[in-house]
Amino acid sequence: MDQYFKSYEELDVHRLMLNDTSRTLAYKNAILNYTDKFKDKIVIDVGAGTGILSIFCAQAGAKTVYAIEASELAKMCEEVIIENNLGNVIKVIHSKIEDLDSNVIQKADIIVSEWMGFYLVHEGMLESLLFARDNFLLEGGILFPSVAKLYASPCQLSSMFQFWDNICGVSMKCIGKHYRETKSMKPEIASINKDDILADSKLIAWLDLQSISLSEINTLGNEEYVCICNKEGILQGICIWFSVEFPDGSELSTGPLDKSTHWKQTIIVLPVDVKVEKDEPVAFNLELKKDISEERKYNIKLILLDATEVEHEIPCYCYMTKCIVTRKYLEEQSNDTTKD
Amino acid sequence: MDQYFKSYEELDVHRLMLNDTSRTLAYKNAILNYTDKFKDKIVIDVGAGTGILSIFCAQAGAKTVYAIEASELAKMCEEVIIENNLGNVIKVIHSKIEDLDSNVIQKADIIVSEWMGFYLVHEGMLESLLFARDNFLLEGGILFPSVAKLYASPCQLSSMFQFWDNICGVSMKCIGKHYRETKSMKPEIASINKDDILADSKLIAWLDLQSISLSEINTLGNEEYVCICNKEGILQGICIWFSVEFPDGSELSTGPLDKSTHWKQTIIVLPVDVKVEKDEPVAFNLELKKDISEERKYNIKLILLDATEVEHEIPCYCYMTKCIVTRKYLEEQSNDTTKD
Repeated sequence: MDQYFKSYEELDVHRLMLNDTSRTLAYKNAILNYTDKFKDKIVIDVGAGTGILSIFCAQAGAKTVYAIEASELAKMCEEVIIENNLGNVIKVIHSKIEDLDSNVIQKADIIVSEWMGFYLVHEGMLESLLFARDNFLLEGGILFPSVAKLYASPCQLSSMFQFWDNICGVSMKCIGKHYRETKSMKPEIASINKDDILADSKLIAWLDLQSISLSEINTLGNEEYVCICNKEGILQGICIWFSVEFPDGSELSTGPLDKSTHWKQTIIVLPVDVKVEKDEPVAFNLELKKDISEERKYNIKLILLDATEVEHEIPCYCYMTKCIVTRKYLEEQSNDTTKD
Repeated sequence: MDQYFKSYEELDVHRLMLNDTSRTLAYKNAILNYTDKFKDKIVIDVGAGTGILSIFCAQAGAKTVYAIEASELAKMCEEVIIENNLGNVIKVIHSKIEDLDSNVIQKADIIVSEWMGFYLVHEGMLESLLFARDNFLLEGGILFPSVAKLYASPCQLSSMFQFWDNICGVSMKCIGKHYRETKSMKPEIASINKDDILADSKLIAWLDLQSISLSEINTLGNEEYVCICNKEGILQGICIWFSVEFPDGSELSTGPLDKSTHWKQTIIVLPVDVKVEKDEPVAFNLELKKDISEERKYNIKLILLDATEVEHEIPCYCYMTKCIVTRKYLEEQSNDTTKD
């Protein structure tokens, strides 16, 4: 556990996160657009870091904000609060939320937290958030954000592997092969060019943070997904990303079509290329499972499936005869109904 | 020592270096512009890595190239050589140059090496290069590159610290202060904006690789330098960088005015700001000293000096009365001489 807090003490990490204005402004806007809900309320900021979200809450009119920060950064958070003259509203507490005595702080009307890790759950603080919710949120209280969603989409990785084909005139395809083997062994954090997304995304997990239980986050996904390619290309990986939604209806989304964030996207790289055509179905099972031995880690399992052997949606817009026939039948039925 | 080779096995590092086309093309052009020197010659490539420099040498007409690579990458180097059909010219040898038996390879006419680390000597392979020169280079043989130079210049770091003044409306100057303390404790590798260079650079070290001895590289610099600011600004660090020169006269330079490279520049960050004016002299002592306990590491010592108390060049173009007077005197003398 020491290791975890050590890495967060590195100021460069916080500089990177604060420099991610998509992230910071999404929270700022969601909080400041919702001042009627914050006015005179008790707020807990779980994993306050440098204290920036606590400050937004205070600016939105909160009566008291408890900025809970487990790492040594708590001292710096305290300094930031003082620098912004908010010491009367924001109380910095240097503790893990799990270690906090219930009489140290009041129960809160709102819990704010930026708990998301890479591909939502990798080294994130979701468990701490749920602990805070279960122990320190008043009945009817709200979470900021309140919903998290995980998406996946087949993609190609043109720049990642073509690189080795010609380096200043020298062919290094053999290294490209080793490089790909390495890359297919663990999730790759990278920004995917939107032109390299081959199909509309599938929703892999929808977490209602207000109600989801700890046991429900042990496994995410683990279903059969069928994506229909909207162009021809080379299937080289499954790209995953997340979004979170705030109670005011606004959203922070980290997908390949969104403004870039420090989370980028995560790619599960396939060991070999698969050529795909327009309207071709790509079927896969994707599972994120909490590691038993390593807290805050998830193992990702991706299995490409034979698209002819899995259930497609009805109607499905892929090029398979079965789906075309079903689609036509449904269209005719719908036309008949319209005629009636 | 194991640690060192481990890090070089990481393919991402090699991808980064190969993707640094300033670097790769500087070698390629220097070698291929000099084919008359390479034709039918014996070449040793010290620290061959992926083998790309060995391939350029073979393309330039070398009879035999010994690609010496100590890390596990030697296997991949071998594959690259075969992929490029140069197995008859290039012999990959999986060994440290220091462990190589003198009868395993012939002495060479040319030693090629990309041995430079951050600020030239940090985790570089200069010692191995000199070992190769002393043990495996024929008399009259040449080194590629043959000269290395280290430069330093006063600079400001506007983007590095201003960042904390206003983060989405929140002031974090207190963190900026801690951040700066952290940054002033070890050399910072970063790309300096050319507008942030405050004065012409000073040559800190000039290494004639053909002749320099091992003991001469124990300490670089350690003299008093006076730079004259060519603009007003805030002195926040001393920026250092290097260039290497090839026997054909071409150069690979990694300064703030050059095309960017993966070495970027290195900044010794001052703990506090110093306002400087145009024509103001900035005096400092900069020393790079080999670490006794850690091979391939150098410790950097920077001392800012009182510019009024150190010797200035003659003539010196700074604003100090002494220098103005001297300059005027010399100009008058020169005018007198012209009249004669």
